[in-house]
Order: sequence, then C-alpha cells, then structure tokens
Amino acid sequence: MREVAILGIGQTVIEEQWEKSLREIAGEAAFAAMADAGLQKTDGLFVGNMLSSIIDGQNQLGTFIADWIGLWQQEAVKIEAACASGGAAFRAGVMAVASGEIDSALIVGVEKMTDQLGRDVTAGLATAADADYEVEQGISFVGINALIMRRYMYEYGWKHIDFAPFSVNSHANAVHNPYARLQDSLTVEQFEKSGMIASPINLMDASPIGDGAAAIIVVPASQLTARAGKPRIVVAGSACATDTIAVHSRRDPLFLTAAYQSSKRAFEMAGVTQADIDFFELHDAFSIMSALSLEACGFAERGQGPRMGLDNEIGITGRLPICTRGGLKARGHPVGATGMYQIVEVIQQLRGECGPTQVDGAKIGMAQNIGGSGATILTHILKAE
Amino acid sequence: MREVAILGIGQTVIEEQWEKSLREIAGEAAFAAMADAGLQKTDGLFVGNMLSSIIDGQNQLGTFIADWIGLWQQEAVKIEAACASGGAAFRAGVMAVASGEIDSALIVGVEKMTDQLGRDVTAGLATAADADYEVEQGISFVGINALIMRRYMYEYGWKHIDFAPFSVNSHANAVHNPYARLQDSLTVEQFEKSGMIASPINLMDASPIGDGAAAIIVVPASQLTARAGKPRIVVAGSACATDTIAVHSRRDPLFLTAAYQSSKRAFEMAGVTQADIDFFELHDAFSIMSALSLEACGFAERGQGPRMGLDNEIGITGRLPICTRGGLKARGHPVGATGMYQIVEVIQQLRGECGPTQVDGAKIGMAQNIGGSGATILTHILKAE
Repeated sequence: MREVAILGIGQTVIEEQWEKSLREIAGEAAFAAMADAGLQKTDGLFVGNMLSSIIDGQNQLGTFIADWIGLWQQEAVKIEAACASGGAAFRAGVMAVASGEIDSALIVGVEKMTDQLGRDVTAGLATAADADYEVEQGISFVGINALIMRRYMYEYGWKHIDFAPFSVNSHANAVHNPYARLQDSLTVEQFEKSGMIASPINLMDASPIGDGAAAIIVVPASQLTARAGKPRIVVAGSACATDTIAVHSRRDPLFLTAAYQSSKRAFEMAGVTQADIDFFELHDAFSIMSALSLEACGFAERGQGPRMGLDNEIGITGRLPICTRGGLKARGHPVGATGMYQIVEVIQQLRGECGPTQVDGAKIGMAQNIGGSGATILTHILKAE
Repeated sequence: MREVAILGIGQTVIEEQWEKSLREIAGEAAFAAMADAGLQKTDGLFVGNMLSSIIDGQNQLGTFIADWIGLWQQEAVKIEAACASGGAAFRAGVMAVASGEIDSALIVGVEKMTDQLGRDVTAGLATAADADYEVEQGISFVGINALIMRRYMYEYGWKHIDFAPFSVNSHANAVHNPYARLQDSLTVEQFEKSGMIASPINLMDASPIGDGAAAIIVVPASQLTARAGKPRIVVAGSACATDTIAVHSRRDPLFLTAAYQSSKRAFEMAGVTQADIDFFELHDAFSIMSALSLEACGFAERGQGPRMGLDNEIGITGRLPICTRGGLKARGHPVGATGMYQIVEVIQQLRGECGPTQVDGAKIGMAQNIGGSGATILTHILKAE
C-alpha cells in the first residue's frame, strides 16, 4: 500500500448560504483546494454528503459536483455514513490512491441544510437512527443523545454545568476561525442559562447545523517533499469501525466501542500512542459526545471525560487541545461536511496556520468523525514530516 | 496493487417483497454470499443503495446492514451513484482489498422500492437527474430517456419495432432465471402493442423496479486457487467514468462518453479487447440504452446498435450474448442493487451455473452499470482462470 500525502485544502464559511446552491458551495471549497494544490484536475472525486437526496432533491452527488467543477470523465462517487460521511469519503479517497488505482483524489464534504424543500431537517437527521426500532417510536436524534447524557450523569454523578468547559472551549477557539458558524465567545453562565431542547441537553450543549463544504486533495506521498515553509503532511492512520445502529442494542450505551476500535486501529497503523497526539479534533455534536469520545480513545478514564475540561486540559495550551478551530459546537455542523472540516483543521494546525489558536509545535494531529449516536466512527491521524 | 478475486456470491429474488424489511432483504443476500464463501465475517462492508433515505427513511445503510448481519465493529459505508450505486460499491470494495487496507470485503447492493413511505418512486428516481436544470422543468427520468430515444430514431432512421429484439432477448433469458422479476417470454407483437409511457418509450422498452439484493465477497487473489469444479475468478478490469448530469449539456446526447471512457480503461487494465469478451451484462434500463451502450463500448458502429439485435447477435449463441440472466428489462431493476446483480450474473456464467442460458466456454465477462442518463458509468471485466 502506498503512503498518501496532502497536496491541498479548501473550505467555505459555514452559515445560512441561501444565495448559493449546493453545487456552488461544493465548488467553492473544491476550487480553493485546487488552487492551494496548484492542480487543475484530479483522477477521482469522492464526495461525503448525508442529506442532499432528502433536502435538496439531488442524488448522484459525486458526478453532480464533478460536472460543476469540470472534472468530466473522471471517476466520481458519493459516500454516505450519516454525520460520518465526510470522514468516510476521506478514507475512500485515501484508499483509492493508496491502492495505486488512481494517482490523485479530490475529496469534498458538503451539506446544504438551511433552506430545504421536502422533509425538514429534524426528520432528515433522524434517518441516521434506526427507522424501524428508534424513529418509529417518535424519538428525535437529539432525544437519543439526551437519554445517553442523562444516564451518564446518573452513573457518574456529574452535574449539567460540568459539561460547560467543552462548549466554552469550542466557542473560545471559533472566535479566531473566519470559517466558523458562531464566531463568538460563550461563558459558563450563558451555557447554563440557555434554553432547554431535550433535557438535559440545552441549546449550548448542541452544535448548530449550517451550509458549507470542505475539500482536500491527496496524492502518493512519494510525489511530495516538504516545500519551503510547508511540511509534508501524510495520512499516518486511517480506520473505520461500527457499532449497533440503535443505542438500546448496546451492552453499554455509555461506551463508544466504535471509537475505541477505530482509534486503536489508527494508533497501530500510525505507530503512535495517545501520548504522541498533539491535538484532537473530536466530534462534539453534543457536549456528552466530547466526554465519551475522550474516554473511548483512551485520553480519559471511564466516566471522567468532563474532568479534562474542568482541569483546563483541553485548551490550546492544555495537555490535549481539542476542537482547536471551534469544533462542531461553534465552527458548526453541516453534517456530511463535518468530517472533512475536521481533517482540514488538522492540516491547518500541522502547517502552523492557526494564528491565536495555533498549537505550539504541533506535529501529530487526530480527527474523529461520528455517524449516528456512535454507530459509524472514523479516526484519522495525520503527521507533519 | 493486489489482484482481487471472488470468494462468494448471493442474491434474492426480485419482486414486491412487502413481507420483508430492507434489512432482511440485504441480509438474505449477504448470508447467501457468506455461505457460498464459507466465511462468517469480513473486514469491511460496502453497500450500494440509492433510495433508502428517501423511500425507507433510513440512512447510514452500511452500518445499518453490518449491525443486522452481525458484522459489529467492522468497517462499513454506503456508496451512492444513482442507478450505478451497485457497480460503484463493488469498485469501492475491490479497491479497499486491492490497497491492502483490508483482507476481505462483503459488497451488498440493495433496494426496497415497492412499499414506500415519504416521496414516491418516480420523484425518488428523478433525484438522479439535475434537480435545478432538469427536474425543476417537470421532466421525469423516463421522459429524459424518451427524448434521447426519439432523437436517436430521427438521426439514424430506426423505427420503434427495431428495438424489440433487446426486450425479447432479455425476457427469453429471464425465463430460466429463478431470481428474475419477470420470468415470462415476450413476443415482438406484445412489445409493439404494449402501453405507451413517454413516447416513444412504451412499457416493454422500460425495466421494472423491484425489491432485491445481491452480494459478493472479494479477497486477495493470492489467497485463492481454482477449487475442484470451480475456476478462480479475478477482477481483471474496473473503471468508473462520468459525464454531465444534465443530458442537454452534452455535445452529443447520443453518445455515452462515460461508457466509452470506462470501458476503454477496463479493457486496458484487463489487457483485452472487445473481441475477447464472451458476454456482456449491459444496463438495459430502457431499450435505447442497450443500443447506446453497445456503440460506446465499441461492439457496434455509431447508430447501428439495433442491428445487433435484428441480426441475432445478442442471443446466448450469438456473437455477443447480452443480458444473459434477463437484464434490467426482465430480471428487474432494484436500482441501487442492479450493478451488483450484473456482476453476480457474470460470475454465475464464468462458473458455468446458468443452465439453459449458459454461454458455452465463457471465460471473460463484462458488466456495465449506468447511473442517471449516462452520467456515472462503471465497467467491470471478470476472468475465469
């Protein structure tokens, strides 16, 4: 298998982009990545998207975007794994180049969610859960996560306010990210007083949806050397693991087995351990998910995830900076694009392009993208050489 | 890149399977493939599906099916490329094994279309076309194909009845396929007298939808030798190419550029030419597509596709047998599963398991799967060794 490296990245701001169509948003990120890479064309296009068929009435999104950006005749497909679609598309593109089948891949994660035709977004997001055994009972996606958070607080004795540092940290970092959906800071008081959605999850536990796209171009690492001022960044670890779709089918609903498995495989592939990870872009769709992700990946003890926030370990200068560009909570969560934003942000850190939220001396970064309530989990580890 | 071989196949009958859920249909094919392969588990699952998010309210289909069949913790994703989803999923699974990233892949194409909630099937199928520039005008997917067929008849002087041999051939072959949706023969008179749908396409030019799944397990070819009575079957050629989504954007709407490109690459990869292909499972969603596919792949001169039918070249003993198990027209077209049915059928022929429709001495077979009106086209060439 060939080692794969990053040639270029691009992203759009995440907001309500009503004046731009789905294809324009995807094209903006794709063209930015091509300009960054100095390439006009790639051999293949891999698109991560969850909801365009439901919300935008558009399927066959690989070819749809290839057509718009002028990649005619090249290979193109869409990969869908609910909110992990972006990470899954990245892995598909990396494997296509690693296999030797193609020599360059453009990967685009895109979602346009805020001006929908057809079904509404809440019903769309619920398609990530089990239609027969969860959604049929009337529960929403937020509702499922609320059940998990309630149980976690009960088992380990945490109060709601103990989760505040996760959201406060993400907002603090997003202030310095011009692509973020919510570029404003958040206080613990604001966190605690925000409106309830599905108890115990309130508005400030939850990430906002949005319209946006992020893109990356990958090529065989052997084609690249470190360029003046820019390190060579390689995909050191890549893994996907799954769990049951329905949370109630799990022996332990408070442990993300798929996060454990996929991070374990990514660590092994990269030849690193938790101690080597300089920062971690995790999937804070809800604050409870930050805790569960840190625990399953071995950065915190079982039931002790919130302790890392309370002890100031997750900030830019902490033991393990997380959500350094704002995370899902404040950068925003355009579902099928999120996994790609995370990896673009890892690359920005490894290139040293993050200004006030730059992690000093960052050489190894990790991104974890979660589909459903822990059902499909992708972990990627990137290294600057 | 490692060479990849077939370890097992499975399929369900295509019909209105109202008594079975989406997961049960997929599981039936997957378990059949596992039994055929003598395997209990694979490293990864790649699912081809187009419409489950719209029709069944279920996304994240990779993990959904992995969960049902007990592949917990393994990698799982869904690949979508409209009606080419099955072929695209097969290629994704083959690349994952070829790359060395995983050592066994289960690929499942599945679609459950006949008892829908949410939007109807016609609206669902239209998501394969361009939502902004085609569907917005009110045209259906059949309507787009009717425009192509009308133009083709005008340009090359064919009459509607000249397309009859394609449908008659598919029905004749489906009589002997127990998995086929329409296991009955068709006469030229019945073809010509059937009800009009979108002129000039009548009911017998068009393939029927249905519920069904087909599955294949692939492994590194080095792990397999020819077994007693069964040849080793390898994936000799695999390619994906694309065209514009909207047919009106093409310089020549009567030439399938993506079929030309993907077949050219597959021929080159396999080291064969048209003359080496013993039979061809083509994508006869509409009779016009049979003609266009034969021409773009170099089996017929431009505008002369129907001649191959009229000259009896496409039957089981003809120069190039096509649709040997019934094709989309009579085996049926459960859209996201179709590409996988085609490849399963190629394997059945190479194993010599096709009874009355067995192609004598078949050693090299080709399958071509089309998404949209020629927008995404996958070509696979398999060889028996």
